[in-house]
Amino acid sequence: METEYRSRLSYKNKELNFEDTSLKEVLANYPTPLYLYSEKELIANFREFESGAKQLGCDFDICFALKANPNKELLKILAKLGCGADIVSGGELSRALEAGIPASKIVFSGVGKLESEIDQALAAKINSFNVESIEELQMINSRAKAAGQIARVALRLNPKVKAITHKYISTGFKTHKFGLLEEDILSVVNDTAYWTSAKLVGLSVHIGSQLTNLDATGLAVKATSECAKKLPCKLEFIDVGGGLGVNYSNEQSPKAPSIDSYMKVIKDNLDPGYEVKALFEPGRRIVASAGIFLAKVIRSKKSEDCNFLIVDGGMNDFARPSLYEAYHEIFPSLQSDELAPTDIVGPICESSDCFGEKRMMPKLGSEDFIAIADTGAYGFSMSSNYNMREKPAEAILELNGTVRRV
Amino acid sequence: METEYRSRLSYKNKELNFEDTSLKEVLANYPTPLYLYSEKELIANFREFESGAKQLGCDFDICFALKANPNKELLKILAKLGCGADIVSGGELSRALEAGIPASKIVFSGVGKLESEIDQALAAKINSFNVESIEELQMINSRAKAAGQIARVALRLNPKVKAITHKYISTGFKTHKFGLLEEDILSVVNDTAYWTSAKLVGLSVHIGSQLTNLDATGLAVKATSECAKKLPCKLEFIDVGGGLGVNYSNEQSPKAPSIDSYMKVIKDNLDPGYEVKALFEPGRRIVASAGIFLAKVIRSKKSEDCNFLIVDGGMNDFARPSLYEAYHEIFPSLQSDELAPTDIVGPICESSDCFGEKRMMPKLGSEDFIAIADTGAYGFSMSSNYNMREKPAEAILELNGTVRRV
Repeated sequence: METEYRSRLSYKNKELNFEDTSLKEVLANYPTPLYLYSEKELIANFREFESGAKQLGCDFDICFALKANPNKELLKILAKLGCGADIVSGGELSRALEAGIPASKIVFSGVGKLESEIDQALAAKINSFNVESIEELQMINSRAKAAGQIARVALRLNPKVKAITHKYISTGFKTHKFGLLEEDILSVVNDTAYWTSAKLVGLSVHIGSQLTNLDATGLAVKATSECAKKLPCKLEFIDVGGGLGVNYSNEQSPKAPSIDSYMKVIKDNLDPGYEVKALFEPGRRIVASAGIFLAKVIRSKKSEDCNFLIVDGGMNDFARPSLYEAYHEIFPSLQSDELAPTDIVGPICESSDCFGEKRMMPKLGSEDFIAIADTGAYGFSMSSNYNMREKPAEAILELNGTVRRV
Repeated sequence: METEYRSRLSYKNKELNFEDTSLKEVLANYPTPLYLYSEKELIANFREFESGAKQLGCDFDICFALKANPNKELLKILAKLGCGADIVSGGELSRALEAGIPASKIVFSGVGKLESEIDQALAAKINSFNVESIEELQMINSRAKAAGQIARVALRLNPKVKAITHKYISTGFKTHKFGLLEEDILSVVNDTAYWTSAKLVGLSVHIGSQLTNLDATGLAVKATSECAKKLPCKLEFIDVGGGLGVNYSNEQSPKAPSIDSYMKVIKDNLDPGYEVKALFEPGRRIVASAGIFLAKVIRSKKSEDCNFLIVDGGMNDFARPSLYEAYHEIFPSLQSDELAPTDIVGPICESSDCFGEKRMMPKLGSEDFIAIADTGAYGFSMSSNYNMREKPAEAILELNGTVRRV
């Protein structure tokens, strides 16, 4: 089975195209390293998620997790589709609002909300705070009181479910910093002192990122529904979090679940005993496959039996392979039958500055380039200026086929 | 034995001081997260290294590796001490020159030098290019020809020595992207086609970072000396690289070698058969212990038997714990006898956003803060804007005791 990126990155006359656009032509006009995003794919991913959510038979909002990619032009596209935002900082709140996402569709997650960020979110009148601790609830209640407002709060449940993913991006186990244990939630909701200027409107749960097995997701949503049943009040919504995985390669397992199978698991487990709105916080699933990372070849190098392809993008530009040992497909600009196992490396003075080891690649020269697939999520957003390098450029391939620097 | 940071971070009247300065007072005037650097410690580290190098009995230059910390004010201090620079990008070259480091003491390392960066370095008349491949030598020779110059070149030997350190920061093994194998060096030096506008002035070697065992260093320098003996010409210098480790904690082994024992290993192995200048590329050893990272407590949190201290600095500000699982000592602002095992975490929505697990810490509130020791190297330089956070602030504690934002 062909995965989706195969259809977006393809060869015509042995030259690499992104959808119907020649990447060679794009790079004649834009600098590298470059993140190039597909408006078409972004919209398709959102629409697919939305269609799936409609199967739930209840109200829902899709709150895109800005941490995956806070590019303003991409957010504008999502805003026009009716998408909300899951934010984790004051910077992300400002960006979401600037892009036209209504405050009523913004939820604020994260364990380290500052007083100033809480004030900013209260002033913007966001939909709700995903509260991660009793101490945070106290701070929000107190800041809302000072502002003469009632803060809308969703308590984040720590479901004690261990998600099967990279240990760095698993978040729902009890030794993690995220969320509240059920006993703490049940205790705090019955103590009016916490709620003088705050109102419980939801529960939320999120067990990790790049999930490929839905068992843990089902357990987490079920635990949240069960917790909701024990509350003294009805909820407006249950936020089932994000974390749905994507397929980063054709060959590697496990496979990411389809939207349909994901929604079936949500539907089967989302039941607090009354009708409730569902909130989703997808990030990677919406934007990962919409982006590619382009880097020009600086030079090739041979060291005994090792072939190295040195490109002008590095781990400062795209951190996932060094940070998570993440696997991404890498496409050479030219199609060829003469291939050799090659390490594709960047210019940074660290051995971890390697995008792929022993990949079958043709011989490329300084006129050539590579495209790393599925880099729309956690690409630019994690980039740094390490080695005093500029951050990579970003551009968008619009529906009409034009490329625009963003 | 007390390690050095114990003397820099200490408690007076149960309050945390950096040298003789109250950190509480510093944070009354400066924002967090904050990197605070000690001019005194920076100078002491440089002087210690320099004194050690004098034991070699030959000429030497110390070329500070900017990648560890390219802060301009720190570089100005080092420049005044006679320090040179090891740079890896055009950005670092500009910064070194701006800080007053003379071009004659600048070496340019890295596998991915761009044509434009080579031109920039030729125009600046740097001491030499540490050349990492034959293909790079061709490019440098060709650019020098175009500029009507003779490029000064040191070939980097890949000594096929496997350094005992984190796999990400080991660089001298044959499967790494760095350097040239000896047979390739001997072949290329005898082919005049490569040297029409380039001159071989040195050999260089570098086997990794945070090295705590000197055996590999000795082998690498010996291999470089042996290679030098086989060359048809005498060299001006041998660049023995950097990578000397530091002690990141009192408790954890292995211990970093003393400067004296390091210099003894260099002296014992640096012998091409004639007098040669030694070049050093220390980064971490000069600047790591000169910096602390300060973050304010946002709130504490308890989840069953787990204690969490949530601070306003995150993995975007200081990446080493998440990127390398690096261990750093963490000091609470207040000294207390009532301690509990605590995870110190940041506000980023990733489980890897954790600076230390199960550290014995007192109960801290929102008036308190923490100091992470030995964060002068690979701290700010690796910081990012992930989660749309601002980069951390930087300040310097000057010799006269004043603190200045830089």
